[in-house]
Amino acid sequence: MHALMARLFPICRSITGNGVRETLAVLREYLPALQVHEVPSGTPALDWTVPAEWNIRDAWVKNAAGERVIDFQQHNLHVLQYSTPVHGWFSRRELDEHLFSLPEQPDLIPYRTSYYQASWGFCLRHHQREQLREEHYEVCIDSTLDASGSLTYGELVLPGASEEEVLLSCHCCHPSLANDNLSGLAVAVFLAQALARQPRRYTYRFVFGPGTIGSLVWLSRHRETVGRIRHGLVLTLLGGPGGFTYKQSRRATADIDRTVALVLRDFGAEYEVRPWLPYGYDERQYCSPGFNLPVGCLSRTPFGEFAEYHTSADNLSFVRPEQVAESLRLTEAVCEALERNHTYRNLSPYGEPQLGRRGLYKGVGGGQEGADWQMVLLWLLSLSDGSKSLLDVAEQANLPLALLHRAASALEGAGLLQPL
Amino acid sequence: MHALMARLFPICRSITGNGVRETLAVLREYLPALQVHEVPSGTPALDWTVPAEWNIRDAWVKNAAGERVIDFQQHNLHVLQYSTPVHGWFSRRELDEHLFSLPEQPDLIPYRTSYYQASWGFCLRHHQREQLREEHYEVCIDSTLDASGSLTYGELVLPGASEEEVLLSCHCCHPSLANDNLSGLAVAVFLAQALARQPRRYTYRFVFGPGTIGSLVWLSRHRETVGRIRHGLVLTLLGGPGGFTYKQSRRATADIDRTVALVLRDFGAEYEVRPWLPYGYDERQYCSPGFNLPVGCLSRTPFGEFAEYHTSADNLSFVRPEQVAESLRLTEAVCEALERNHTYRNLSPYGEPQLGRRGLYKGVGGGQEGADWQMVLLWLLSLSDGSKSLLDVAEQANLPLALLHRAASALEGAGLLQPL
Amino acid sequence: MHALMARLFPICRSITGNGVRETLAVLREYLPALQVHEVPSGTPALDWTVPAEWNIRDAWVKNAAGERVIDFQQHNLHVLQYSTPVHGWFSRRELDEHLFSLPEQPDLIPYRTSYYQASWGFCLRHHQREQLREEHYEVCIDSTLDASGSLTYGELVLPGASEEEVLLSCHCCHPSLANDNLSGLAVAVFLAQALARQPRRYTYRFVFGPGTIGSLVWLSRHRETVGRIRHGLVLTLLGGPGGFTYKQSRRATADIDRTVALVLRDFGAEYEVRPWLPYGYDERQYCSPGFNLPVGCLSRTPFGEFAEYHTSADNLSFVRPEQVAESLRLTEAVCEALERNHTYRNLSPYGEPQLGRRGLYKGVGGGQEGADWQMVLLWLLSLSDGSKSLLDVAEQANLPLALLHRAASALEGAGLLQPL
Repeated sequence: MHALMARLFPICRSITGNGVRETLAVLREYLPALQVHEVPSGTPALDWTVPAEWNIRDAWVKNAAGERVIDFQQHNLHVLQYSTPVHGWFSRRELDEHLFSLPEQPDLIPYRTSYYQASWGFCLRHHQREQLREEHYEVCIDSTLDASGSLTYGELVLPGASEEEVLLSCHCCHPSLANDNLSGLAVAVFLAQALARQPRRYTYRFVFGPGTIGSLVWLSRHRETVGRIRHGLVLTLLGGPGGFTYKQSRRATADIDRTVALVLRDFGAEYEVRPWLPYGYDERQYCSPGFNLPVGCLSRTPFGEFAEYHTSADNLSFVRPEQVAESLRLTEAVCEALERNHTYRNLSPYGEPQLGRRGLYKGVGGGQEGADWQMVLLWLLSLSDGSKSLLDVAEQANLPLALLHRAASALEGAGLLQPL
Repeated sequence: MHALMARLFPICRSITGNGVRETLAVLREYLPALQVHEVPSGTPALDWTVPAEWNIRDAWVKNAAGERVIDFQQHNLHVLQYSTPVHGWFSRRELDEHLFSLPEQPDLIPYRTSYYQASWGFCLRHHQREQLREEHYEVCIDSTLDASGSLTYGELVLPGASEEEVLLSCHCCHPSLANDNLSGLAVAVFLAQALARQPRRYTYRFVFGPGTIGSLVWLSRHRETVGRIRHGLVLTLLGGPGGFTYKQSRRATADIDRTVALVLRDFGAEYEVRPWLPYGYDERQYCSPGFNLPVGCLSRTPFGEFAEYHTSADNLSFVRPEQVAESLRLTEAVCEALERNHTYRNLSPYGEPQLGRRGLYKGVGGGQEGADWQMVLLWLLSLSDGSKSLLDVAEQANLPLALLHRAASALEGAGLLQPL
Repeated sequence: MHALMARLFPICRSITGNGVRETLAVLREYLPALQVHEVPSGTPALDWTVPAEWNIRDAWVKNAAGERVIDFQQHNLHVLQYSTPVHGWFSRRELDEHLFSLPEQPDLIPYRTSYYQASWGFCLRHHQREQLREEHYEVCIDSTLDASGSLTYGELVLPGASEEEVLLSCHCCHPSLANDNLSGLAVAVFLAQALARQPRRYTYRFVFGPGTIGSLVWLSRHRETVGRIRHGLVLTLLGGPGGFTYKQSRRATADIDRTVALVLRDFGAEYEVRPWLPYGYDERQYCSPGFNLPVGCLSRTPFGEFAEYHTSADNLSFVRPEQVAESLRLTEAVCEALERNHTYRNLSPYGEPQLGRRGLYKGVGGGQEGADWQMVLLWLLSLSDGSKSLLDVAEQANLPLALLHRAASALEGAGLLQPL
């Protein structure tokens, strides 16, 4: 996954433009079935409108000697995203109003955007800014804002036995930021590859689009079918340090919320489950009250809570391969838990079924050895009255999901349990 | 408010009689629309009957030398409330059975009553009682119990846009006790003046009556209309030291219970919210199971929990003007929260509405400045699905009601929110 | 009760056989109305089948010198329950596979069973086992497994005013173990005697049967009538040290669960309430999802949590008479609480009824003496709106059940309360 991230890192992505197209073209090498959609600028998307397409060739600030003192060629982050084209001489004071830097982190270039308000600007290290002492600078941003352009997003559907869907969504609009969100893209791509290789109960839908406007566009084009989404996750910030953070969907007690909490409980890594908050990533759109989809957000340390967030320090050395790999394993475990969750009915509910004659009970009684496995079977038989799913059993009996999956198979094999 | 309390303090009030009439006459100077009702003695009031009207001119105990050793003229509290008339010589031992004092607070005169059991008695400082060493005393209580008298209560109605009512009730039957309950009367009078000056969504009904029998009489005369009461508060003990105490209505989760808890949370003073208890002030009657009105009780330190309670130490120096003023501000905040509570519907519920083009969003993105106000807007949009009031939002999002009121106005102004 | 336990202790009980018959014959001396039922081996019982009847005359292991080195005559526990007959010489290694001892408790004989898997074996002190150093031993188990035998259980019904039943069940299948479960039998017998002497609202049904198969057989013969069971308890381990442990029924909030918790709260002894667990005693069968009866399990220190459990140390000196007596008092208190629990309706629900004129109120007001009794009356009047039982009141108001029983009688006597 690191190789994929390394390849995508240099591309200058934004919410529209060739950077997104290039990115999706790379993903397609991994996922040949990935569909790429172009949505014309000006297209209404719920309360929003697809903006003009933005592309940029070059951008710089030169001093009197003609030296580039800020240079887009050095780092994609140097330009305020969606900067309008500009070329001319500006006084230092005029220029200063268009500069963004971080006095508290003077060695880092911040990431800043102005998608929906026409503006131009440069982002730079605060140390660099303090050295701009000349009276006038030549400024050039060689960008285009094309009202007849389009917004690009990718979509991959892995059909399952059922039309019911699991939505996995990640934003692909940030330039040269590794954790935010090449890590999410990489995990989604490898999760899709893994799911593609196995039988699926659910249909899995992966959406790779620009933040906010991408999910709004996608929702506006699927208003009739979003009702098929049974579970969903926004995947982001999955490569940095720190334990996992799961932010619940607006529903708070949807199956996805309970499943992720249980998988995290069993997984072994540090984690935190947080309540719904109407700020964050594209779950804001999926969970807007009109849709109210069961979509949570899975990350490691959340946005704004690590120093490298939205700066040039969120680079390829910040995301660690073993962290991304662990994140992938976690998402696979979540999908397995979703696939294997059923509400069972005990087919022998009057009294306990005699496990012994079915080979499911230890022999000599009176002692207490080997009781754990037996307890799992008994819990499952006791609670499987047709009203409780494995999630309910895992919560009430505080038993690992993996053990319940095994026990459910054993009891189903013995004719004692049947999924509804 | 202190001037009002000072003027009312010397009046000898009881549950009937001229003291209540004089008190209400003073209140009428502040609230000209106050209606005064007279209910004849003997009138049934639910399970009770209006008692004979009690008035008292004088009362004393004289020693052999003819000196008044207990003198009603010195303090209203010296007489057991509703003492039957008596005049004659009594042995010290006979007299002693009619005396009430507080051995543990020997300098204070207790307040005692015997409304529904014919009796006479004197209340005095325990030190004073210990000096009664003569063998015989002359006793006189010049009181009248008039079966053709009446019970007096006051009522003020401030009509609002709706017939739905807010009930504010305080007892006016205690003689020469400042915190209990001249403080409640003063807060109610000034709250009524404030409400009278402003547009009102609710109709506000203030009841000034004697404890227990007053609210029973009022309820018995409004059995058909109490259903209009949406919220209510009994106001008492609002001038002493200590933080606020809110006692929940019997319903425990009525809007008034949640509103007062939220207003107290935001207000800044110390406070405590306590569960329903079937003992206390007139909320006992309003919340009796047949009526079960949403009426809580707001006080500072509750009855029985401060040393001055029901003694001569509950005087005009015990109630502090700044405490009464703060109590008034709190009740005003509660009424404002009731007036402004609505269940809103997000009119753009599919995806987030684009706040930017409505001037409700900060400009350059990527950083995290100014996020607080934005969060309030987003919370309100997220939760306003037509099932949640501002109280729900304030609780779930832990946001101040005042901020939500402002945000609701802004979003309503932008056409994004509509009250149901 | 100790005399009863002492008499039953030497009998070699198992899940079938003459030991159970002898035991029930003794109980019948205490409870002449006890019915003894015989159910033929081979009879289906829900998912199970009544096993062959097992009886045993003698069992021993002899060394080369013909000395009994393990001797059933010395202790019933020396034989693995349901051992098949065997006679012959075995090498030490062959014999060793049929021996059960406790290395960590080398002085105790363990209790082991093999009801549903044909096997034979001996249980012995680990010290004793370590002295078996000869190469060959003569082994004899003189037992019979009779496929035309039967299973025996006892049942006592004490009819009450209502057909609604309280089930009290205890297992009578353990040989020479005092706490497990002669203590349960003794408490049940004396509780039945006490209940037989008094008027009963409920019909009480006592079941004395072998663990698991006994309750399965009983349930299979009462499938149509178990619906009459309103409350139930499995009684076990009631004579050892330690506080009480109540294990909730599968329903968790059944009246029996709440009643036992409240009685324990009021009782004064140490106690613990534990959630449902699908392992334990016959509540496993009563609470199986098809039946889901409101049956909890009452014990002192639970099985497996005291060192003497299922060993020869669970003897007559382990169970202390005062502990068994206290357990009996507790079960009587539970039955009294069940009998006296009602949902009352306040017949004067509009305002408080005037308690004073009914002699239920203290005289002179203003002070706070004697308020406790008054509070009980007020709580009961306040909450008795026809939706709340005494259990609800005891929980919400945190009042002792005994006090509520008295208050309910007083208010019913005054015509203020009526049971639904």
